[in-house]
Amino acid sequence: MVARCFVLKATVAAVLASTGSAVSAQDEIVHDAEFTRMEQEFGAQWGVEDEEVATKLAALEERFGKKPNIVYILADDVGYTELGSYGGGKIRGAPTNNLDRMAEEGMRFLSFYSEVECSPSRGAVMTGRHPIRNGLYNITLPGEVGRGLHGEEVTIAEILSEAGYYTGFFGKWHMGEDEEHFPTNQGFDEAEWSEGNPPWWVANWEASADEDAGGFNNRGMINSPGPEGFPYDNGGVMRARRGETPEMVYRYSLERYNTYDSEVADNVIDFIERRAKSDQPFFVNFWGKGNHFWGAHPDFRDTPAQSNTSAQMVEHDYNVGRVIKTLVDLGIAENTLVIWNSDNGPMYTVHPHGGYSLLPGTKGETREGGIRVPAVAWWPGMIEAGQDPLDLVQITDWFMTMARLADAEDYIPTDRVIDGVDQSGLLLLGEGAGRRDYIFHYNRDQLEAVRKDQVKMNLKPNNPDFHFYEMFNIYHDPAERFPNEIQNGLWAGPGLTKMIQDHFALIQQFPHRVLQGHYRDFDRSFDPEPTPVYTPQKTVDW
Amino acid sequence: MVARCFVLKATVAAVLASTGSAVSAQDEIVHDAEFTRMEQEFGAQWGVEDEEVATKLAALEERFGKKPNIVYILADDVGYTELGSYGGGKIRGAPTNNLDRMAEEGMRFLSFYSEVECSPSRGAVMTGRHPIRNGLYNITLPGEVGRGLHGEEVTIAEILSEAGYYTGFFGKWHMGEDEEHFPTNQGFDEAEWSEGNPPWWVANWEASADEDAGGFNNRGMINSPGPEGFPYDNGGVMRARRGETPEMVYRYSLERYNTYDSEVADNVIDFIERRAKSDQPFFVNFWGKGNHFWGAHPDFRDTPAQSNTSAQMVEHDYNVGRVIKTLVDLGIAENTLVIWNSDNGPMYTVHPHGGYSLLPGTKGETREGGIRVPAVAWWPGMIEAGQDPLDLVQITDWFMTMARLADAEDYIPTDRVIDGVDQSGLLLLGEGAGRRDYIFHYNRDQLEAVRKDQVKMNLKPNNPDFHFYEMFNIYHDPAERFPNEIQNGLWAGPGLTKMIQDHFALIQQFPHRVLQGHYRDFDRSFDPEPTPVYTPQKTVDW
Repeated sequence: MVARCFVLKATVAAVLASTGSAVSAQDEIVHDAEFTRMEQEFGAQWGVEDEEVATKLAALEERFGKKPNIVYILADDVGYTELGSYGGGKIRGAPTNNLDRMAEEGMRFLSFYSEVECSPSRGAVMTGRHPIRNGLYNITLPGEVGRGLHGEEVTIAEILSEAGYYTGFFGKWHMGEDEEHFPTNQGFDEAEWSEGNPPWWVANWEASADEDAGGFNNRGMINSPGPEGFPYDNGGVMRARRGETPEMVYRYSLERYNTYDSEVADNVIDFIERRAKSDQPFFVNFWGKGNHFWGAHPDFRDTPAQSNTSAQMVEHDYNVGRVIKTLVDLGIAENTLVIWNSDNGPMYTVHPHGGYSLLPGTKGETREGGIRVPAVAWWPGMIEAGQDPLDLVQITDWFMTMARLADAEDYIPTDRVIDGVDQSGLLLLGEGAGRRDYIFHYNRDQLEAVRKDQVKMNLKPNNPDFHFYEMFNIYHDPAERFPNEIQNGLWAGPGLTKMIQDHFALIQQFPHRVLQGHYRDFDRSFDPEPTPVYTPQKTVDW
Repeated sequence: MVARCFVLKATVAAVLASTGSAVSAQDEIVHDAEFTRMEQEFGAQWGVEDEEVATKLAALEERFGKKPNIVYILADDVGYTELGSYGGGKIRGAPTNNLDRMAEEGMRFLSFYSEVECSPSRGAVMTGRHPIRNGLYNITLPGEVGRGLHGEEVTIAEILSEAGYYTGFFGKWHMGEDEEHFPTNQGFDEAEWSEGNPPWWVANWEASADEDAGGFNNRGMINSPGPEGFPYDNGGVMRARRGETPEMVYRYSLERYNTYDSEVADNVIDFIERRAKSDQPFFVNFWGKGNHFWGAHPDFRDTPAQSNTSAQMVEHDYNVGRVIKTLVDLGIAENTLVIWNSDNGPMYTVHPHGGYSLLPGTKGETREGGIRVPAVAWWPGMIEAGQDPLDLVQITDWFMTMARLADAEDYIPTDRVIDGVDQSGLLLLGEGAGRRDYIFHYNRDQLEAVRKDQVKMNLKPNNPDFHFYEMFNIYHDPAERFPNEIQNGLWAGPGLTKMIQDHFALIQQFPHRVLQGHYRDFDRSFDPEPTPVYTPQKTVDW
């Protein structure tokens, strides 16, 4: 709800006042301790840059008579090296001409980091907070209750709504099935969404066995050896306006899933066309279909790699081009920031249908392949063409950056840690104007690695090949093959340790939100019949 | 010697006549069996393309009054993902602006394969033959005699000389120290060369211990715990004209090695300036300093990665830009083909100073990282800008392609197998006009892997992680992580086996050249004094 953040601010101020806490965070955004350290060092320079950014934005608002529109495109499971401009594309049999052009005409981020997996990355960009803080640090699964985007989290949609934006969400939400989780209860004026990829779409118990599922047969892929269908009805694609009870647009089906990314793009384009001439700026989300498993659009199955992931990549790239073309055709491109990034690395459990990265590591891991992902920003006239900054950017940063561009920072709650940092300077002033040289890489509820400048320290052996406290230089060794504490980290160790200590100290002040998820009662049992004892039909006596 | 190929042709014709062999190879270039199969299938189409190529070349010759110049730049140990245009550059702290621009304005090869290491790749491009065939399938080492580019091999320099080209060689030769191996005895009109990287340059016994060696101290890096210096005099950089006895320009020294790539570029630029206005077309080679170990130029030590390899990459990129600028400034760019490629993958034994590839595998291995390397061709007006073909190209192909562009195919010997195929159609007509869909990947004297279209079969477990007969789909899995015989290779197995059988059958007809290398007598013993028994100076009685 839009008004929520005000209520929260007031509440927190009261709590702080009553406890007599020394923290004077009532009026200031609370950033992580390492950011505060950077701010002390670079604050003066940032102040100058902030003025340059403000001047550019003021000139733009003067020209268009409103704040800039924002299109945020979140791709699913696209690895760092999957786009042509990142060394992939054609070598994977999946050229990405539109995303490559977007990069040529805009900014391609060479050091962009997501969270390790799907729901956590989504919650992170919505709240500007690491999943451990907002509680959504596990992937939500069909039938789960109580896990999702908590109602007391303040989303960027809520903040931009406060600042006068009209907000829309289209695509894969994956932040919970409870009413409080619905996008139209989280700041969006209108939304049409699916909760997830398959297994939601697979698990429709009405699906027929010979349904087309990206070239696969439904029965051949799912539920073996259990009963046909999952134990409960997963519902389908939902649509609502702010505060309304959602209506189901259609039930999930694998056949419909094949064309879902294009359908989402249709909805986004329809939204943009309806809102282009409004006095209100818009914020619209195009959160694509998974670049994995099932679901190859019939029009894109001719890729040379003949995998679902390559068909989906080419289709998604085409849909990104359609959205960009809409902005250009409507004459609003120069007043519209378009951001595209992947939510995490590839999913190898379904290779070759789950994406790829030349960087080792998968979705669900803090190895580089799991979290270093492609990201592009496009804004003709505002973002200079052909840039490829090395500046570290984390997915939470979009929250702060969008809030800044909308002049909406006053609506950001000050009772909690905001991990995202404002990267509007990087976008509008270029390489070197980024505002973080560190990242805390969490995997579920564990801090698994920290990054500082070129150095990455892996804290915890979540992968069999890892040792304790491995130190890598990510410039020397982006694939993390040569851990060397002496060469890469000896000088950095004490500083990194201090950075981690300060990070944990702040958690004591601002504890994490705790979610208690559980599975709702099933319509029918999940348990398959016990596998019967098997006796071969043909026997031989001897 | 220029005349050698004619002599050889006559000899072979005589041998074939006397044995009554059914092989009528006297007048035809002998290609591998798989190429012959392709030729049967695509010959008609190739004939049409050949005419298009001939028309373009004739128009160019009409315009400039001579055949096109060729600049061949061979880089040393640059991994597939090291250039910015291949997903590297800045992410390695080593932007490659000139090579990236060369790619933007020309053709970037996405599936270019070298041999596994240095001398073998050099011999392959010089002869158009895999190292196993010309005998140079091991790296030559200081002090070795009898191993190198055999006098009876026919080099592209000899062939282009026959066709009227003026030929020059500058840089690291690494194809033998015997007189027959010298570039000026292998078809070059003039040359200034070093035999190799360090260890040649390190092993100068006159080197002083505090000599600057890319930020390292000479004594600290070499010969420990042996005697100071290697056992013999490695000589130095040599210069000669065709047939002359070479003179030593200067003795090797690590300090001089630091600036060697730039010195080679100076020589290449001087050559081009002297030959630009001649009636004769030129063929000049810029074979760069190793992108590994020692040798960071003082002007390029400010890279953020602070490694020798990053300094060398930026320096080499700068030198490539200088060569291109020379062609442009002289107004001969449109009549000059520039080819740049790496000789093999990175060298991890000296990490982080030995280059890198996101593809697993090192120099000396047939894993993709060892042999899939960056390659760029630039020829304004003749090669269309911005192309990135997926067509397979092997380093031997430059031999055939250069011969074709110089209209010199008649000088190619017909008594031996030529592995290279003519890729002039690919250069001038674009993607899809390549002429190979297969590669035989040798490692020293073993056929270790074969490639056919998207499928790669690894035959031999040279690496601990390899199994027998692993099958990969290189589009699905460029890093070779998921071998799957059923998914990737079951349908391909019989065809691949036939391809290998036919390849071996041709070897029976045209046996390999055998080289017998040995080490020459040393001026002093290589063996260090036996390590003395060590007794700590400080002891305690108890």
